[in-house]
Amino acid sequence: MDTRPIGVFDSGLGGLTCVKKLMDVLPGEDIIYLGDTGRVPYGGRSRETILKYARQDIAFLRRFDIKAVVAACGTVSTNGLEEIAGDYDIPVFGVADAAAAAAARLTKSGRVGLIGTKASIRSDAYDRKILALRPDTVIVKRACPLFVPLVEEGRIDPHDPVLRLVAEQYLAELRDARVDTLILGCTHYPLIARTVGEIMGPEVRLIDPGAETAQRLKTELARLDAGNPARRGQRRYYVTDSAEDFGRAASLFLEAHVEGDVKRVSLEEKTDE
Amino acid sequence: MDTRPIGVFDSGLGGLTCVKKLMDVLPGEDIIYLGDTGRVPYGGRSRETILKYARQDIAFLRRFDIKAVVAACGTVSTNGLEEIAGDYDIPVFGVADAAAAAAARLTKSGRVGLIGTKASIRSDAYDRKILALRPDTVIVKRACPLFVPLVEEGRIDPHDPVLRLVAEQYLAELRDARVDTLILGCTHYPLIARTVGEIMGPEVRLIDPGAETAQRLKTELARLDAGNPARRGQRRYYVTDSAEDFGRAASLFLEAHVEGDVKRVSLEEKTDE
Repeated sequence: MDTRPIGVFDSGLGGLTCVKKLMDVLPGEDIIYLGDTGRVPYGGRSRETILKYARQDIAFLRRFDIKAVVAACGTVSTNGLEEIAGDYDIPVFGVADAAAAAAARLTKSGRVGLIGTKASIRSDAYDRKILALRPDTVIVKRACPLFVPLVEEGRIDPHDPVLRLVAEQYLAELRDARVDTLILGCTHYPLIARTVGEIMGPEVRLIDPGAETAQRLKTELARLDAGNPARRGQRRYYVTDSAEDFGRAASLFLEAHVEGDVKRVSLEEKTDE
Repeated sequence: MDTRPIGVFDSGLGGLTCVKKLMDVLPGEDIIYLGDTGRVPYGGRSRETILKYARQDIAFLRRFDIKAVVAACGTVSTNGLEEIAGDYDIPVFGVADAAAAAAARLTKSGRVGLIGTKASIRSDAYDRKILALRPDTVIVKRACPLFVPLVEEGRIDPHDPVLRLVAEQYLAELRDARVDTLILGCTHYPLIARTVGEIMGPEVRLIDPGAETAQRLKTELARLDAGNPARRGQRRYYVTDSAEDFGRAASLFLEAHVEGDVKRVSLEEKTDE
């Protein structure tokens, strides 16, 4: 038994879709969430900048006595997280590992699709992870940079004509490539899973990295006997921009009213605030 | 005569549309440009964070011996730039002032439209500036958060169906309100001016804040006898994320091949790089 909290971070609030899955699968765990809303999005930035920000995010979470870190951010998970994970004495989980394992396990045709931010698609992290598990897999990738701003504008209704048109354009080549499994490689995408699913067709299996990671964490904590058997965990939220708008945005991603503290913090300058 | 350079900053590379206008109008001036690409965009952030970043941007430009600062960023220009401008002993120009003056001068019906980022529209800076010059003006505003990601994805062709559909939706209420003047209140928007113009109709005058600011700077430098009579100014570019992608993106906004140095710098930590 280990009652210390789990630290979760993301470039912004999209990582709350992962928190939602953690709450479903591991309801007793305390969670400390950091959303780097002052610098969101990470998805168009260079690898060097992404890793610098990730280190700062983890350093903040480490101020609490946490037992594990989850990088809920698809961009961080595919841009060198393994390189820095070894620097810490607690396990660091990225959402890409469990998602890649699920894709390799679930595909029948061996044709796997991946959608994500520019940085996630530019990286070969998913390719490496999937091919290590199943070397004959064909991976078809597509960056979908407009999906995040569309979700953030609240355009998640499958009937929204702009969402529909953009999704049709982005997904055309994945459909043509006849993938049977599609990784939703960005925290925001589970919110438009219905639209993506309708366009890809019912025979294509969608993989939510947050959900797969929650399952992996459950297995791992059980193996280490490090779970928290509490009836209901506490959650604390930290952001790097104004905490004012947090409630509205967070309830979009958590699909529930936000309970727990929300505080603004600064990562950049130690002398600040 | 004053041969010191002019400092120009923006949250990212969109401010290069303003540099282009400065180069056209004041070809002899040396320009130091800072694009805060490591933290772009500013448009969805809180006023407090925007001003903090703006101070850091100006502090960086001040390391050079500059004679004036131009905040090419629409978001900064409408979120308290006046408050911090007084802290410097050189003039600080925001793009909103000249644009507001042009709108007040050019509107015949007294009905002025404004489009911009969320933060620019949330602020009442344009309202205050225009109403101070022409108190009977009716101002109709609309945030257009998808325009920046659309431009950055290269969707600037007036025939692009997604751009068209989004622009039709955003501009409908401005057209219904029968404005005769429309301020393009974000650095990216001049690149989609043709699409905006086609939807608004030929009787609506579009105002490019970068172009208006270049004219104002010319007048002001002439008044102070502080112009640079050189035949052709030098330009130096600084970014806070990777300098690698700069050329491609910059040529989009400058509408020309980029000449001059491009360097990566850090604003956050003095000990960094």
